[in-house]
Amino acid sequence: MVDSHGVNERYLEDIRTGDRFRTADYAVTEGEIIEYARHYDPQAFHTNPVEARNSVFGGLVASGWYTAAITMRLIALSEVRIAGGLIGLGVEELRWPLPVRAGDTLHVEVEALEVRPSHSHPDRGIVRVRNTTLNQKGEVVQTMVTTLFVPRRDGQTD
Amino acid sequence: MVDSHGVNERYLEDIRTGDRFRTADYAVTEGEIIEYARHYDPQAFHTNPVEARNSVFGGLVASGWYTAAITMRLIALSEVRIAGGLIGLGVEELRWPLPVRAGDTLHVEVEALEVRPSHSHPDRGIVRVRNTTLNQKGEVVQTMVTTLFVPRRDGQTD
Repeated sequence: MVDSHGVNERYLEDIRTGDRFRTADYAVTEGEIIEYARHYDPQAFHTNPVEARNSVFGGLVASGWYTAAITMRLIALSEVRIAGGLIGLGVEELRWPLPVRAGDTLHVEVEALEVRPSHSHPDRGIVRVRNTTLNQKGEVVQTMVTTLFVPRRDGQTD
Repeated sequence: MVDSHGVNERYLEDIRTGDRFRTADYAVTEGEIIEYARHYDPQAFHTNPVEARNSVFGGLVASGWYTAAITMRLIALSEVRIAGGLIGLGVEELRWPLPVRAGDTLHVEVEALEVRPSHSHPDRGIVRVRNTTLNQKGEVVQTMVTTLFVPRRDGQTD
């Protein structure tokens, strides 16, 4: 997960605990906040700028699931590619400490927390990753820890 | 969170540990799996039915974030409304034990695990909820535990 490897695909052997990278930026617009929420999180504080003023947020805010979707996009399009793709086994501790608002620009900082072989699948390993999503002020708007299945370079296939 | 209350908004006092409900159904199409993933999770096993055959999934599968988005939609549109809206503080243990495929029909079963007053906000409470997303065969495709901020009926506003 170090930048010097360029766009080559990474296997388990290429990833070390503590490896980090930063994604590109993503500009959040009012139109996209509303469009996403109309489909997937239809609540007035996500879809109606006027009604949102009277909500606990005091204005329009992005659905947390939209922030998670942007985070996934930024990681999937980053220069760090995992061989076989990003196969997520699950997510721990998904948190939204601050709301995302129209005009924010987000990026993600990714850190490998743990790298180990899989007991049940000798051709693969498990990488626990912390993904932190920040806005243009450096404020954390989302944190999560996720667990990925990553193939071993010398692993047999099943 | 019991069905007999109809579409009235629920306050903390209206929710008891063990309350459950089931959402409506949602039919997953190949077009929507691909459209969502092109925007938010651009990987071949989510966007390209032909390339997906050679992936670990053996065919096109939905992004887990798309399953999470459908889950949010089904809950937000259900007859159970929380006063002030669904304000999520975070998610624990988001898991995708089985992939979602085109043609699946999903629904969500919601259960209140814990109901308690907030220490820091006397006008609100905390409700921990388990959301289980199932397909038409009754197989679990997603589990999560989420924590919601819920207003008290007699709470002062801040």
